[in-house]
Amino acid sequence: MAGSSFGTIFRITTWGESHGKGIGVVIDGCPAGLPLTEADIQPFLDRRRPGQSRYTTLRAEADQAEILSGTFEGKTTGTPISILVRNTDQHSKDYSSIADIYRPGHADFGYDTKYGLRDYRGGGRSSGRETIGRVAGGAVAELLLRELGITLTAYTRQIGPVSIETFDEKEISRNRLYMPDPQAAEAASHYLDGLMAEQDSAGGVIECIVKGLPAGVGDPVFEKLDANLAKAMMSIGAVKGVEIGDGFAAAAACGSTNNDAFTIGADGRITKHTNHAGGILGGISDGSDLVIRCAVKPTPSIASLQQTVDREGQKQEIRIKGRHDPVIVPRAVVVTEAMAAITILDALLVGMGARLDNLQKIWCPKGH
Amino acid sequence: MAGSSFGTIFRITTWGESHGKGIGVVIDGCPAGLPLTEADIQPFLDRRRPGQSRYTTLRAEADQAEILSGTFEGKTTGTPISILVRNTDQHSKDYSSIADIYRPGHADFGYDTKYGLRDYRGGGRSSGRETIGRVAGGAVAELLLRELGITLTAYTRQIGPVSIETFDEKEISRNRLYMPDPQAAEAASHYLDGLMAEQDSAGGVIECIVKGLPAGVGDPVFEKLDANLAKAMMSIGAVKGVEIGDGFAAAAACGSTNNDAFTIGADGRITKHTNHAGGILGGISDGSDLVIRCAVKPTPSIASLQQTVDREGQKQEIRIKGRHDPVIVPRAVVVTEAMAAITILDALLVGMGARLDNLQKIWCPKGH
Amino acid sequence: MAGSSFGTIFRITTWGESHGKGIGVVIDGCPAGLPLTEADIQPFLDRRRPGQSRYTTLRAEADQAEILSGTFEGKTTGTPISILVRNTDQHSKDYSSIADIYRPGHADFGYDTKYGLRDYRGGGRSSGRETIGRVAGGAVAELLLRELGITLTAYTRQIGPVSIETFDEKEISRNRLYMPDPQAAEAASHYLDGLMAEQDSAGGVIECIVKGLPAGVGDPVFEKLDANLAKAMMSIGAVKGVEIGDGFAAAAACGSTNNDAFTIGADGRITKHTNHAGGILGGISDGSDLVIRCAVKPTPSIASLQQTVDREGQKQEIRIKGRHDPVIVPRAVVVTEAMAAITILDALLVGMGARLDNLQKIWCPKGH
Amino acid sequence: MAGSSFGTIFRITTWGESHGKGIGVVIDGCPAGLPLTEADIQPFLDRRRPGQSRYTTLRAEADQAEILSGTFEGKTTGTPISILVRNTDQHSKDYSSIADIYRPGHADFGYDTKYGLRDYRGGGRSSGRETIGRVAGGAVAELLLRELGITLTAYTRQIGPVSIETFDEKEISRNRLYMPDPQAAEAASHYLDGLMAEQDSAGGVIECIVKGLPAGVGDPVFEKLDANLAKAMMSIGAVKGVEIGDGFAAAAACGSTNNDAFTIGADGRITKHTNHAGGILGGISDGSDLVIRCAVKPTPSIASLQQTVDREGQKQEIRIKGRHDPVIVPRAVVVTEAMAAITILDALLVGMGARLDNLQKIWCPKGH
Repeated sequence: MAGSSFGTIFRITTWGESHGKGIGVVIDGCPAGLPLTEADIQPFLDRRRPGQSRYTTLRAEADQAEILSGTFEGKTTGTPISILVRNTDQHSKDYSSIADIYRPGHADFGYDTKYGLRDYRGGGRSSGRETIGRVAGGAVAELLLRELGITLTAYTRQIGPVSIETFDEKEISRNRLYMPDPQAAEAASHYLDGLMAEQDSAGGVIECIVKGLPAGVGDPVFEKLDANLAKAMMSIGAVKGVEIGDGFAAAAACGSTNNDAFTIGADGRITKHTNHAGGILGGISDGSDLVIRCAVKPTPSIASLQQTVDREGQKQEIRIKGRHDPVIVPRAVVVTEAMAAITILDALLVGMGARLDNLQKIWCPKGH
Repeated sequence: MAGSSFGTIFRITTWGESHGKGIGVVIDGCPAGLPLTEADIQPFLDRRRPGQSRYTTLRAEADQAEILSGTFEGKTTGTPISILVRNTDQHSKDYSSIADIYRPGHADFGYDTKYGLRDYRGGGRSSGRETIGRVAGGAVAELLLRELGITLTAYTRQIGPVSIETFDEKEISRNRLYMPDPQAAEAASHYLDGLMAEQDSAGGVIECIVKGLPAGVGDPVFEKLDANLAKAMMSIGAVKGVEIGDGFAAAAACGSTNNDAFTIGADGRITKHTNHAGGILGGISDGSDLVIRCAVKPTPSIASLQQTVDREGQKQEIRIKGRHDPVIVPRAVVVTEAMAAITILDALLVGMGARLDNLQKIWCPKGH
Repeated sequence: MAGSSFGTIFRITTWGESHGKGIGVVIDGCPAGLPLTEADIQPFLDRRRPGQSRYTTLRAEADQAEILSGTFEGKTTGTPISILVRNTDQHSKDYSSIADIYRPGHADFGYDTKYGLRDYRGGGRSSGRETIGRVAGGAVAELLLRELGITLTAYTRQIGPVSIETFDEKEISRNRLYMPDPQAAEAASHYLDGLMAEQDSAGGVIECIVKGLPAGVGDPVFEKLDANLAKAMMSIGAVKGVEIGDGFAAAAACGSTNNDAFTIGADGRITKHTNHAGGILGGISDGSDLVIRCAVKPTPSIASLQQTVDREGQKQEIRIKGRHDPVIVPRAVVVTEAMAAITILDALLVGMGARLDNLQKIWCPKGH
Repeated sequence: MAGSSFGTIFRITTWGESHGKGIGVVIDGCPAGLPLTEADIQPFLDRRRPGQSRYTTLRAEADQAEILSGTFEGKTTGTPISILVRNTDQHSKDYSSIADIYRPGHADFGYDTKYGLRDYRGGGRSSGRETIGRVAGGAVAELLLRELGITLTAYTRQIGPVSIETFDEKEISRNRLYMPDPQAAEAASHYLDGLMAEQDSAGGVIECIVKGLPAGVGDPVFEKLDANLAKAMMSIGAVKGVEIGDGFAAAAACGSTNNDAFTIGADGRITKHTNHAGGILGGISDGSDLVIRCAVKPTPSIASLQQTVDREGQKQEIRIKGRHDPVIVPRAVVVTEAMAAITILDALLVGMGARLDNLQKIWCPKGH
């Protein structure tokens, strides 16, 4: 199945394995006229790059993006943008011991069952390196959304049992855990240090806020904006849960408190007193901030001893060596932001013709 | 945007408004040879039918399904199965008062902004009646899955603050809340009685378990089985959160406890000691039970007074009259089951050609 | 496979068999605000209705369209438009003799091989009645295109060996063969009378002209406007060839004569001296008239004796009784027009966001 | 619009411009287990390579394919296969004179109108070099089809007015025009020499034959095998017409002669006496050879003087310099073969689940 593409009008197709020749993405359907160079994309890739702190793998790759097509004289042309990141620091020998053994918490068993064989080096296609293509695609989407006045901010909300209690946007980039609360970042660091000493790992929660999105984006029924966001988020490797707005907390609430009363804002526009809905009602944006939350499971690659089986169906024990993050949440922050940006831009594009008068604006600019 | 279809090979397209002439679904891509009559579908529709208890709307519609195409001599033919349910109990006059007012927690404002007009009668397309098409489509999917030894069980796990503590599958159909724990069902009933007295409403959590699904179902990257399940669930009107396996609880766990150790089962097959993953690793089924959970927000239609605005941007107050469930969770149980069944059947169909030898089994049955 | 849908943003899904309960279509993604009632659609269906002349089957069905959803107060709402036509004149007994025999030129053998069973009554899903759904969907598309100043005209260009030599648009609806040349229509009638006497049948060529389509519609590479038109046309039952502009004649031409020189029209816009290209260059409309041509094979149902085999692999002889058109070309004219309209409207919708400034026009109407 | 992808389960996404950094394709959904190296793909690319004869451009590029992902130990893994061909012989200066002028017969005007800007170097995305990605993707499809006993043969049937009169498969690769008739190849060469002297160009007709395709492939209604083949062929740059079997000739035939009588073959299987249908009935393969024909227009780039206009709407004259084939038909032969292979493999994959018993064969191999 062609499962490596995402989006209808703005569509990314990612490819590449952890220890193959490279990783990449083809971004198709990008509107023409967006200023775009490699220097615009690199900062996004740098946010997910390994080797940034003692909580991320030491794999020292620059992950340098090369734009192979789709731009001309510094602008997008509307044709597919192909972006290539060569793999440069591959230690294939590290992985030979797991060629026939199924790592707990990993996709090894599923791949072997489905395909009959797998590229076992570093997780192959199921490696976190696959997200490089998402981030490059998301960078283009996010740059385009900025031209429409729409901005995204993602950050770490929780690591293991440590949640943020304050929110200061400037703090996000000041600590390597991307937490907007310096105290929580400090506490989470201590927590991670303890886990590392025990050869264990942690999970966490990522939150993404979208500002400036107009009301009326998203489609009823199956192409609801939140449905596509849920798919986008759950398609990220370690994500096990997705919430919009109050999410699971809404399940325990009452209608009288969960409903957001409409009112008129200072700018004369319709707005809401509260935002329990997280900016989406009936699958369509309501003009409030989008609030998206993802649960990320603990890194499954841990060095402590685990029980498992091999391809022949024999019981085995395993310790996963190599370079592994004790928590992938900080590096996944930019990935969730990327997937949100791609989803939203695509929804804006597919929704342009929802009204006959919109068609007339584009195709009959001077009337007919 | 054509947002009323779901699925790639097995695809449903729903249509219809609450107070239009009817509601229906076209089920395309159903494999030929499945025994199917209206009597097979009706029990599924009856599970979501109104008027079943004092917690569901009194709208007394039989919601009788008519199969218009796609079967011959009692079997599916592989051609589209069109199913029609006529609307018979429409009280349009009940809704005239909300023609120009945006109900809090509803899609009214979004529809008006997006389309410039809306069918305001009973929520129009955003009505819960839209799910009739999903349930009919899900019935077909579920019947087909049974032929493959795959079964689904959905139930109410939580209503407001009341969660189940025991699980007895037989109890599910014994109480009108579809809870597998009779004590919890009792407590939830009391809770709902209290809310009804206050003209308020409740939300809850639905869980769906899938047994018998082989390992190797789902695709890597964007068409992960859990990604499509998340989209399927979040596309249901009032759902605000989706979890697979431990979901958000995994965010606070450690790798050493969250990883499920592989082992060899009594039948000699590879299995897992635990199932924190909820049956999916790396987007591909691992042979364990699928565990899917949805958060459902409280019914937004409440009779108590709410602040809102109208189409002209004037502040208004509103009391929502008419027939409304104080909790939609019990009726949504079968909807989540339907969406899970559709998603899984489609994943089975798109995954048939993952291996060259599978192609040979179907297209070169006697070798070549 | 879900093969009964066509289109990306504006998408039709047809369903129904010749002798099932009915035939229908779900039209999803239709922009909101288009005036639409059953009376607007019926004239299109009447153009393909049987019983119009001695060259069409006597099956006397009104083929009355009922709109079940998607409109409110006479306008489209942006939600799916479900249209139902009940089958009323089914003579199933006519077809029992062909239950186990494969009719030459028909899909019987393919269906049986693919699905293992088939609804043999009147061709089941492969019946020409399937096109009712296309025509209803095309009617909606064509009505919407008119609002954008785009008009379609389809007609019979050739029947058997008789081709038109003159073109008078008014003539098209004056003869039952829909030919714009009354002399050709006369000659074709004689030709058909002769064939009927011999229990034989004829094919022909249909041409469709689209006026008013702006330049810049269609996408490069695989979603070229002509590629989608070719698929649209070839998906019609008896069509065996499709041409754009000069088509196969271009294969024998020279570049110097086949190239259309650009020039400036009286209105100051860029136009072409000639239109060998048929209005499409590189997959994108060039502002000239679209010219699409389809080859339709002779009606395969003929009463003269034919050799064939049955399901058991035994040789058989067959005479196809029942009501069959000696030529289906005239009734297929409106079907090609419908498919062209659907394809073009979809291309207009998917192409709205080709430029960043178009996105800004729709989503940031007052700047940002 | 994301128009650079083709296929549902087996899907190719091409990218790249004539004078950008390279050209490539991502092949997603390829079944795992197919032996594949660069050496398997290169012969296909060599068939479309320039510089092969005096009738093809002198651009001397090796067009060497590099596989960047999707294979492991010499076999496909089921994950996306990314193939890169670097552009090495770019003479951008040749094209600066056409930056603001619309070449007749080219897509320049359409691109500018649609996107507001274009990469004018060598046609940019609309260059014939785009087909490199198709051919690489088609090579993989064709190699896989061979494993199923399905083979494709494409060749030049006509150049300008010169058609083949004999068919000897071995001749196809013996002359640089890929004609199976040496006399016709000789005559066509003379014809082309004459055109070159006059700075003119020719078109032609390509035919593709597919052998070994089982009956039952393709879907009814919109996903007919011939409908998808028509789209595939018409999406190739210069193609202006597509026929299946007798094609346009069928329009002038009678039912009694055009119908192919079924019979029992020497191997005991159902077959047909004749093959006017070209192997497809009702959109589904009938077990006979597929016969597909494409009309290719004359190369629009000619050195003789042409009238045109520029971006500012001023009339201009143009002579197109640079390296241009007087006929592209021979190099397009492998492109049509590639598109046919991709279309057929995809149809085989999407059709695997047409019957319940097929699902059981794959997912319940030992019964349930």
